[in-house]
Amino acid sequence: MSSFDDVQNRFGAADQGSLRRTNLALVLGRLRDQGPRSRARLATELGITRSGVSSLVGELVERGLVRTGVVERGAVGRPGTSVRLDGRSVCGIGAEINVHHVATMAMDLSGNVVAEHRLTLDGNRHEASEVVDRLVELVSRTEDDVAAHGAAPVGLTVGVAGLVDSTRDMLTLGPNLEWREVPVGAMIRDRLQPDYPVVIDNEGNLAAIAETLPGDPGRRDILVIFGEVGLGGGIVADGRLLRGRQGYAGEFGHMIVDPQGRRCGCGRIGCWETVAGLRALLDAAADTDDAVRDPALGLQARLAELNRRADLGDTRTLAALDQVGGWIGVGAAMLTNALNPAAIVLSGYFAEVGHHMRGSIEARLEAGVLAPHAGGTVVELSTLGFTAAVRGGATLALESVFADPTRVERLVPVAQGESR
Amino acid sequence: MSSFDDVQNRFGAADQGSLRRTNLALVLGRLRDQGPRSRARLATELGITRSGVSSLVGELVERGLVRTGVVERGAVGRPGTSVRLDGRSVCGIGAEINVHHVATMAMDLSGNVVAEHRLTLDGNRHEASEVVDRLVELVSRTEDDVAAHGAAPVGLTVGVAGLVDSTRDMLTLGPNLEWREVPVGAMIRDRLQPDYPVVIDNEGNLAAIAETLPGDPGRRDILVIFGEVGLGGGIVADGRLLRGRQGYAGEFGHMIVDPQGRRCGCGRIGCWETVAGLRALLDAAADTDDAVRDPALGLQARLAELNRRADLGDTRTLAALDQVGGWIGVGAAMLTNALNPAAIVLSGYFAEVGHHMRGSIEARLEAGVLAPHAGGTVVELSTLGFTAAVRGGATLALESVFADPTRVERLVPVAQGESR
Repeated sequence: MSSFDDVQNRFGAADQGSLRRTNLALVLGRLRDQGPRSRARLATELGITRSGVSSLVGELVERGLVRTGVVERGAVGRPGTSVRLDGRSVCGIGAEINVHHVATMAMDLSGNVVAEHRLTLDGNRHEASEVVDRLVELVSRTEDDVAAHGAAPVGLTVGVAGLVDSTRDMLTLGPNLEWREVPVGAMIRDRLQPDYPVVIDNEGNLAAIAETLPGDPGRRDILVIFGEVGLGGGIVADGRLLRGRQGYAGEFGHMIVDPQGRRCGCGRIGCWETVAGLRALLDAAADTDDAVRDPALGLQARLAELNRRADLGDTRTLAALDQVGGWIGVGAAMLTNALNPAAIVLSGYFAEVGHHMRGSIEARLEAGVLAPHAGGTVVELSTLGFTAAVRGGATLALESVFADPTRVERLVPVAQGESR
Repeated sequence: MSSFDDVQNRFGAADQGSLRRTNLALVLGRLRDQGPRSRARLATELGITRSGVSSLVGELVERGLVRTGVVERGAVGRPGTSVRLDGRSVCGIGAEINVHHVATMAMDLSGNVVAEHRLTLDGNRHEASEVVDRLVELVSRTEDDVAAHGAAPVGLTVGVAGLVDSTRDMLTLGPNLEWREVPVGAMIRDRLQPDYPVVIDNEGNLAAIAETLPGDPGRRDILVIFGEVGLGGGIVADGRLLRGRQGYAGEFGHMIVDPQGRRCGCGRIGCWETVAGLRALLDAAADTDDAVRDPALGLQARLAELNRRADLGDTRTLAALDQVGGWIGVGAAMLTNALNPAAIVLSGYFAEVGHHMRGSIEARLEAGVLAPHAGGTVVELSTLGFTAAVRGGATLALESVFADPTRVERLVPVAQGESR
């Protein structure tokens, strides 16, 4: 329960940590969460000596993670030297395999997006090995972009639409991909031979990480509900992703909310995703031959068409959005009783059409939560679009550096540095 | 998201922390979680110098939190000096107000129970102020016990059966106590005038804290379901209680699981506690004039009678336990999809009769969880009986010392020490 363990457990580092490493992490984390500041201010805020701060900052500079520069002061006092994150030298890479596409994103330590790639692909129609081949091509291209940027990758996180057993590095079950026991991580490592760690994770978890804003109290306790063909998401509690024992947390889509309802892809009756997933919306909104149900058109175009109809006041479309919104609210209320999040962030397809569902979601939330005013929980729409999972994957890869800055080697003289 | 913030946020400390404080907390936490060990071992494990460890241990000794003693070595090497927690000087106090009783417990830093008091009381029949008066009498008695033990209280945590708004220090709603907007914390402080902090919390949260075992990986991610007249509990994720935005997390009892079912005390239809709370069990197991439904007999005696009937094979009792167990499993499966806990710990009345319900709970859990084998989640019965909430309250009060050892003042020479 100590904070020392906390740092270790963030990314599952197995070795013994050190206070030095913890202290480097504290300085680096503060610069990320609170922005650039002087050494003197860091010393005051962290309650250590100026020389202690200088030593820590010096090491972070040597590792290329922070840089220093003159900061202007007011009329009084000498100008102090500010310390800020140096985003340039390392990148995290996020990748995603879902039913509709494969995608990647590279992000530097400061949160700047360095590269982004996406390929539309029908995950159901291809063997797992083919899908992984396509993804590895995108990752290779992303690696080239990172190298051209003058940076090195520190890790790759691959989000998949399904249950990921973190203890076995295995996609246990991807109901909508129709994959079972696929060693996605090992397949990628075999093809890519990377010199950085590759971690697989649930795409809903990664979408949740992407919505967490370090330093923003309104985004420390959030529930992210990620709508796709299936329905998943993640729980962030006190700024940290809740993973559970085997990494299976966030499988909201299979909470049974409609016991007399329809059969789910998983075989059960009345799972939340049967009434709130994309198929439920399309079934309610359109006949089977309607263009909005044609996978060939691409999801964003189809959702844009639904929005167009709703904006024009089409009764069937509005009723469908209302009905699905109500069911989103039913499940959200259950989870809000359990979790009392500051915000429920609707991600994936929910974010695209959520403005038409907000009223019905909020009404069910208010009705279904014991605490007055739904415990203060607000409903928000993600602004990350369909990049949430890859963004979260890149963030998680970078997180390993924030948890342990010594993972990035000290910079060596230029002549030798080229061997990196 | 830094571990520095983590330490601060554990007990809501508002001031700026310091690395020194963090480092003291790391040493103290390691001694609690891993047991006594030598300075040399601490230095190796924490990756700091021997003199750094000696300085930290020295300060913890001065604050009366650890003590040192000779440890035997084998045939080779000099005997080293071991460092261990010193439980004697400080105690945490836990208290509870629920529908059936008020109670207190004092626990020292090593986890030894120093005092325990309990008073049966029908919370529905008394004004809130009377109930608080009775509790304050028990707390005063407990303070005397702590003083007689030679220790000082570091904090009091009061668990109540209801929604506690941690930001306003207010019992917002206690549906089964029939209390609304009762400032329990302020009422206790007014009467008691303590020189230590008084915090109110939900009794299910405290029961969950009591089940968390620092250092035991099987108890780092747990879901505690606490059965009483109502049904509540708490979520522990990665060793930390999940509180949510306003402290309302863990209100599982009002998840709607039976939408066509009975009306709940909260006014909604089909809340989990209507089918799994104590009343549901008693309604199913016994006619209205049956002695097991007589509040005057005391809850433990009535549950013992139900167990006796079940052991004798009484059909109605067994069917009632089976039915309620099935409903416990339905809600547990929902939460397990969301949280993937290592263990679901059944606490409160569930622990007393849970051995007769385990089969039906596990069957529903297996059927309702997407992950194979219920994601590895096991069902366990609490062994803490009805003391779980007070134990958790005392633990939480002590936690403030583990998070910030400087909260306990350095010992002063004996002549002045008596003024404490």
